[in-house]
Amino acid sequence: MKGLAPTELGVMLLSLALLIGVARALGELARRFRQPAILGELLAGVLLGPTLFGYFAPELQGFLFPQEGPNAVVLDGIASLAIVLFLLVAGMEVDLSIVWKQGFAALKVGVLGTIIPFVIGVACAYLMPQAMGRQTDADPLVFALFVGTAIAISALPVIAKTLMDLDLYRTDFGMVVVSAAIFNDLVGWTIFAIILGMMGTHSAGIGIGTTLILTIAFAIFVLTIGRMAMHRCLPFLQAYTHYPGGVLGFAVTMGLLGAAFTEFAGIHAIFGAFLVGVALGDSSHLSERTRVMIDEFVSFIFAPLFFASIGLKVNFVTHFDLPLVLMVLLVATVGKLFGAVLGARWGGFPTRERWAIGFAMNARGAMEIILGTLALEAGIIRQRLFVALVIMAIVTSAVGGPLIRRVLSRRQSQRLMPLLSAKTYLPNLIAETRWDAICELARVAADQAGLSAETIIELAWEREQLAATGIGHGVAIPHARLAELKAPVVVMGVSEAGISFDAPDGQPAHVILLLVTPSEEPTIQLELSADIANMFRDPQCLERIQRASNYTQLMAALKAAAASKQE
Amino acid sequence: MKGLAPTELGVMLLSLALLIGVARALGELARRFRQPAILGELLAGVLLGPTLFGYFAPELQGFLFPQEGPNAVVLDGIASLAIVLFLLVAGMEVDLSIVWKQGFAALKVGVLGTIIPFVIGVACAYLMPQAMGRQTDADPLVFALFVGTAIAISALPVIAKTLMDLDLYRTDFGMVVVSAAIFNDLVGWTIFAIILGMMGTHSAGIGIGTTLILTIAFAIFVLTIGRMAMHRCLPFLQAYTHYPGGVLGFAVTMGLLGAAFTEFAGIHAIFGAFLVGVALGDSSHLSERTRVMIDEFVSFIFAPLFFASIGLKVNFVTHFDLPLVLMVLLVATVGKLFGAVLGARWGGFPTRERWAIGFAMNARGAMEIILGTLALEAGIIRQRLFVALVIMAIVTSAVGGPLIRRVLSRRQSQRLMPLLSAKTYLPNLIAETRWDAICELARVAADQAGLSAETIIELAWEREQLAATGIGHGVAIPHARLAELKAPVVVMGVSEAGISFDAPDGQPAHVILLLVTPSEEPTIQLELSADIANMFRDPQCLERIQRASNYTQLMAALKAAAASKQE
Repeated sequence: MKGLAPTELGVMLLSLALLIGVARALGELARRFRQPAILGELLAGVLLGPTLFGYFAPELQGFLFPQEGPNAVVLDGIASLAIVLFLLVAGMEVDLSIVWKQGFAALKVGVLGTIIPFVIGVACAYLMPQAMGRQTDADPLVFALFVGTAIAISALPVIAKTLMDLDLYRTDFGMVVVSAAIFNDLVGWTIFAIILGMMGTHSAGIGIGTTLILTIAFAIFVLTIGRMAMHRCLPFLQAYTHYPGGVLGFAVTMGLLGAAFTEFAGIHAIFGAFLVGVALGDSSHLSERTRVMIDEFVSFIFAPLFFASIGLKVNFVTHFDLPLVLMVLLVATVGKLFGAVLGARWGGFPTRERWAIGFAMNARGAMEIILGTLALEAGIIRQRLFVALVIMAIVTSAVGGPLIRRVLSRRQSQRLMPLLSAKTYLPNLIAETRWDAICELARVAADQAGLSAETIIELAWEREQLAATGIGHGVAIPHARLAELKAPVVVMGVSEAGISFDAPDGQPAHVILLLVTPSEEPTIQLELSADIANMFRDPQCLERIQRASNYTQLMAALKAAAASKQE
Repeated sequence: MKGLAPTELGVMLLSLALLIGVARALGELARRFRQPAILGELLAGVLLGPTLFGYFAPELQGFLFPQEGPNAVVLDGIASLAIVLFLLVAGMEVDLSIVWKQGFAALKVGVLGTIIPFVIGVACAYLMPQAMGRQTDADPLVFALFVGTAIAISALPVIAKTLMDLDLYRTDFGMVVVSAAIFNDLVGWTIFAIILGMMGTHSAGIGIGTTLILTIAFAIFVLTIGRMAMHRCLPFLQAYTHYPGGVLGFAVTMGLLGAAFTEFAGIHAIFGAFLVGVALGDSSHLSERTRVMIDEFVSFIFAPLFFASIGLKVNFVTHFDLPLVLMVLLVATVGKLFGAVLGARWGGFPTRERWAIGFAMNARGAMEIILGTLALEAGIIRQRLFVALVIMAIVTSAVGGPLIRRVLSRRQSQRLMPLLSAKTYLPNLIAETRWDAICELARVAADQAGLSAETIIELAWEREQLAATGIGHGVAIPHARLAELKAPVVVMGVSEAGISFDAPDGQPAHVILLLVTPSEEPTIQLELSADIANMFRDPQCLERIQRASNYTQLMAALKAAAASKQE
């Protein structure tokens, strides 16, 4: 078989390592700043692509990321595989039953939140094609439909993530938004399939009509018979093949088959992978373990690879067109807010929630970028519109969370981990009694808060006398509320021998967490206590903390405990 | 970027789906027959390649798996990526500390078990190059060294798997074999690196000397400074990045970087990935969860893809040369057995264990096939030698387990799962008392064993009177030993209401397992009891079984319980 020459293989491996490595690093950096990881991943491509790396070292950049030849073909193939797997996973996150349950309220938000921005987008693109960046020889109608779709699709994963961060995901409000976004996704992709059919670039002897019929038939088949067949297959696979590898191989094979079918039928491969993902994810027999495994591998290897590879395609500086960027941002935001807020009003939501729904639905993400990539390759849009679409997706995603928080005056419930620090972690408590332990911890807390240790000790001890704060599982949470405090302070001490805090299970406390919170915000202490009790319910958590010998190892232990609890 | 046209993308997705899907299916089939999965995966390639599919439908086969053009390049690139990731995982399984602990005994087996087959292989290939299938224009010395190496490398993963299946992995015997195989691996790959250097095919201006120096320097660097640096990095990644995705991305990036380095240095990419894997796997900070996740994804998606793609390269029927196959088998087996048995004798092992060590070390696998693929592509060997090497690897791997079992008269300890069947599973017990339950289960057992139900009831009840068989956690295991029985019978009944079997924890039994075993083999019942007690220690196991409503769901539940226990 004619394959890659050794140097080409070396280039392939090095370019993949750079794309994944830089994308992961910047993705993590974005998360530090409470931004979606995709922002950092896209930036990695901009750094490695013609925009920056190519500007300073065009020859080396051309050697590592050539625009044509075997390496370009291989990278394109692997990036296509990556996006197919990403859509398979995205489909698996869609829960059809949620869509039905939320009923009309969600449908109203979904319908208006899709149709209005779509119509506004189509109108703008049709009336001012030049200003919006149409390729001169592209069909005006196809172009207008594309812009409408690109503006109408909300980013389901970004929305879900934002709602989870705000503890709103499992609320009625959250479920309406998620259902509306799922509806939005399905409609958006169907319209996009039609556009691709109209473009006719894929027609290897297949007309638009045939493509549309095949697509609709395929969608119906996968979501009915296919869904049931896979639901029946999964327990067999789990029972009689290697677990979870058997199901893993099955899911990927099905996703690739679906992708190949839609690609041959004349619409893009990702649509088939997405539908197979929806059908698979809907099965209650798909174990959480398998789901997490495929999700992690795809989200942390393939997705960064794909999003970083986008930046390689375009020079983001030379094709940056400020008026166009502002125009796209304006049309997209106004259209979506108008539609979603109107839908929410129709659905009977109070004013504040209407706006929160609007901001949530306004988040765009991966889908716009994928659509943009396809349209760019198909020669429908110019590079400057592509750049504008990517920037619009990033901006709307980044501002969604803060805006919802402000509109609903919503605060995230206080968690333990963000309050810990190397300075407030005492891995070897000297104290042997309850009083000594409280004193030892209170002195550290006083330093941290800039208050007197005596006050903290006095208040904590007073509280301790009312009822001992050992909560069992080897943990105690003495606490004090101070009027003059601005932000909560937590000090964690670990005692090897254990100190009795009169826990209901009679066990001595090995981990003692002194919680010092502002009197003005009485709920913080309750939220912290709940988070701690929840964490230590798993006996492994205590063991892991006891094994840690420095702050980094402590963080690693708490992360591992949090992750194993999720499953 | 010039990439794949839509039809080419469709072909890529379909060919990947076929390779992964068929390889997984046949891999599972091989496991059913207690053979290594790689056997089925290789067979998948033979079926989809020129040997079978190409014989019956050459045009369609050529369309789906073209020998040149963009699709051939992409498939080659993805297969190369797959084997790099596979070697990364294989390296992670190597535990350097085990190699040191076993000390001289392992070293003796390792040294003689590597050198003797290597010398015999080199001698045969040098003296009869034509009979052994040398390419006419290949260097005789390079060819001889290649054959020696291909015959000298044992298959560490196959050996580890065989030992685990026989419950010998954690014994001293097992650890000596594993350590010797690790030594073997390291030496074999170093020799292979030298051969590739001598071939000079990779020399993009790099001479043999430079390649060797770079290789050795890289190996020393990765296993010392690199290993320590990664060991230090891991807790940071686990603490401050997404878990386990952060570590996952890091491991893959490092593996690709190592692979790219060795590829550019003039030896094959897989050597670098393997070394990085060894260094990473050695860190105690690499959590089991991350390890399992990367292992599953690579073993069940990428490895099947790679091994299946091998069958595409060669027609296994037209290039099948019986004398050569027998010759390779003979030289390989005699050389390896002679060397390993001699080494084991030197190391002070008794006669039977010497032969068991010999049969274990004789197993060849993935490495021979990878070496063969490289040698075939580099034009050192003919296709008929490649076919002979693949067959040799399969045969030696397949016979290893049964031969060790025979030599050591070793029987696998009896597990519960293989004894369950749809016929002996009663999801809804009618019985409400202990006596009724034993009668109900005994009747099914009697049918199954062809014996009288009365005898079983009598014996089981007698045993029950001695001491109740409730073992707690909602499980009871009444049992009877019968002289006239050949093979053990287990009947599983699930009672929704629960039946008291006087368990130490006072809980009624919801799962009642009647064990009927032959009197001649008293250990079987103890092994079964131990397996059951171990399974039900996790409270989730009982819950999962209670949720199952048919036999397939029961199997799925037990598989999931077994898997979650492993972590």
